[in-house]
Parts: sequence; structure tokens; C-alpha cells
Amino acid sequence: MIEEKGILFVLSGPSGVGKGTVRKELFNQATDLKYSISMTTRDIRPGEEDGVDYFYKSREEFENLIKNNQLLEYAKYVNNYYGTPRAYVEEMLEAGYDVFLEIEVQGALQVKENFPEGVFIFLFPPSLEELKNRIINRGTETSELVLNRLKEARNEIEMMDAYDYVVVNDQVELAVEKVQSIIQSEHLKRERIAKQYKQLLEDEL
Amino acid sequence: MIEEKGILFVLSGPSGVGKGTVRKELFNQATDLKYSISMTTRDIRPGEEDGVDYFYKSREEFENLIKNNQLLEYAKYVNNYYGTPRAYVEEMLEAGYDVFLEIEVQGALQVKENFPEGVFIFLFPPSLEELKNRIINRGTETSELVLNRLKEARNEIEMMDAYDYVVVNDQVELAVEKVQSIIQSEHLKRERIAKQYKQLLEDEL
Repeated sequence: MIEEKGILFVLSGPSGVGKGTVRKELFNQATDLKYSISMTTRDIRPGEEDGVDYFYKSREEFENLIKNNQLLEYAKYVNNYYGTPRAYVEEMLEAGYDVFLEIEVQGALQVKENFPEGVFIFLFPPSLEELKNRIINRGTETSELVLNRLKEARNEIEMMDAYDYVVVNDQVELAVEKVQSIIQSEHLKRERIAKQYKQLLEDEL
Repeated sequence: MIEEKGILFVLSGPSGVGKGTVRKELFNQATDLKYSISMTTRDIRPGEEDGVDYFYKSREEFENLIKNNQLLEYAKYVNNYYGTPRAYVEEMLEAGYDVFLEIEVQGALQVKENFPEGVFIFLFPPSLEELKNRIINRGTETSELVLNRLKEARNEIEMMDAYDYVVVNDQVELAVEKVQSIIQSEHLKRERIAKQYKQLLEDEL
């Protein structure tokens, strides 16, 4: 087998779409996948472990990491920072593990900027399916409500453009199966594998 | 569900790699896939059916199709033409079916030129795996033979560059599973789906 670096997979989508459920079911099945551990400035709580639940840092340490572009993304909630440390992700990838990051849309767009070689999966709410059906059926329901939902859909679609794949979360099992096929097929992409083959040959010749 | 056009998948690779075996096993599993029916100028044989085994054409008809760029690829063997008619493939794709084409490398490169939106899968011989192992182990076997095999590998790798995916055919079942994951994930690509979503919304607004 050729030695391959891992791939960063980023699962995102609008809030309420079921990212956490899909991620949990995926990790039940894909035991080789490494979950990206977040970093935070909030206090460690009883039962939590540094480097397992979070990496716990002081505000000063965290702000230094921000300054040095050592976070793939970060945000502030209730006066505390939360973010994704670049170092942990890169170590896991170098060791050959795929890393999986489940995150809301704004964070995913930050990751995309800092780590464009990641694979970005947009989890789509099945409610747009319903919306589409309404549009397709062209009934009498073209009210203000439908127009608002269309605008919402438009905003979601704008964000979709930054992503590589779109998975509709109509059934968790199906969504997980689709994410699995994305993970597998990404490893089969010629531009990843050919480089490795060539490297091996060039090293020798 | 949004209405989606089918995708043309082209499986190719060096002769002897096991393309036919992988294709047969794939069709045992993936019953929605349409196999691309070839066109030929050779005589129909007892038991064969026009439009099932081949589309049978006269030499004149075939040469007209070549002139009008109606073949995705063609070649001449033993004084007869064989080729892939564009019309059949496009009809199936329009009807929403994925079309699968199993073909040798030269033909695949022609298809790529005439139908670049296809998905091209290179089936890789496990013998390069062995070759790589030899290279990796850096033993005493760096004879002329190994150098020749390396050159062969280099040629194969040059051709790989025209492909989207590389699947090593070490075990047929594994290779088929990988091809299946490619078929599934290609349908999840944002650039395919987002366009459909947008089209639907734009038609209405």
C-alpha cells in the first residue's frame, strides 16, 4: 500500500439540520476517523479531560494562536473563545488519519479559507425538498410565506457554493451512507493517488 | 427529489487488468446502470440481437457517423469498425440513467475528448503494487527487468492523468465497492446538485 496522508472532512449546514446526529452515527461506523478536538478558554468542568473533550487554554494563549494563524476557525460565545487548532488536525493528517469536523456554516467558511484542501460537505435540510415540491407542483400556495422560504433557500444555496458535496438529510442512515461514499471516493481521486505513485517512482529512478 | 441527468462513467485500464470482471460484478449489483451498447459493421451472428448485443450498421452508415462526430470513440479491428454511438449514451443520460462504458485506454481517451463531462475511472493492476513493494524494499532486484517494469509503470501513469479516479483491482469485490462509492458520491457533487436547486428556484421566481 502507498502511504497516504489523511483528508480533512468538514460537515456543515444550517442549524437544526441534524449535523450532530449524522456525525454520531458516522463515528459509530467509521472507527478510523479522528474527530477534530476543539480548543476553548472556558473552564474545564468536572469529568472533562484536557485533550479529550477540549484543549483548554488561557485567553492569552488563545489570542496568541489567533494572531499566529494557528486556528482553522474560531468564534466567541458568552465571553469565551472556541476554535479548531490547526496543529492537531495537521498532526492527525500527517499520521494518515482522516479528520472529521462538524461545524456551523460560518465556521466552515473560515476553515475553507485556512484549509482549502479540505473536503466540504453541506448537509441539506429535507424541508427544502418540501419547498421544491411546492415549487414543482405550482399550486395556489405562492403566498408571502413561500416567497420568504424561497429567500431563505436562496441564502442557503449561496453558502452551498463553497462546498464540494451536498447531502440531503432526509434519513440519517442514508445521509451517513452518502458521507461514507464521499470519504471512500475522495481517497480514490487520481490527483491524490497519482502523485503518490509518481513520487515513489521518482524516488527510485 | 430533483430530476437529475445521468452520468457517464468510463472504466478503463491496461489490458489484462480485469475490467470485464469488475464490470460484470458491478452490473450484478447495480441494476439501474445502463451498459453502453457498441456499434459495429461486422455481421450479426446467430443469437445476437440488434440494439442488445450491438447496433449493426453498414460501413457507409458507420463512416457517416464518424464524419458527423456521432461516435464518442471508435476503432477498426480485422476490417470492421467498432464504436460507441453518442446518441444512445445521450438518450440514456437525458432519461436520468447512469451509463457505464468499459473500454481500453485508447478508446477512453477518445471518449474523454468527445465527452469531457464523463467520469473516468482507471483500473490499476495490482502488479504495480508488487512493483512498488520492490521499489520500497530497495533490495538487490534493481535489474534491467525492474527498470523495464518501471518504464511500463511510467507509461501507465502518464495515461492515468486523464482520469478522475484510480481504483486498484487487488480484489474484485473491493474494486466494485469502490466504483460504487464513486458512482454514489459523483451524484452528491455540489456543482451538479446546486445547479438543479438553483434552476428550480429561478424557474419560479
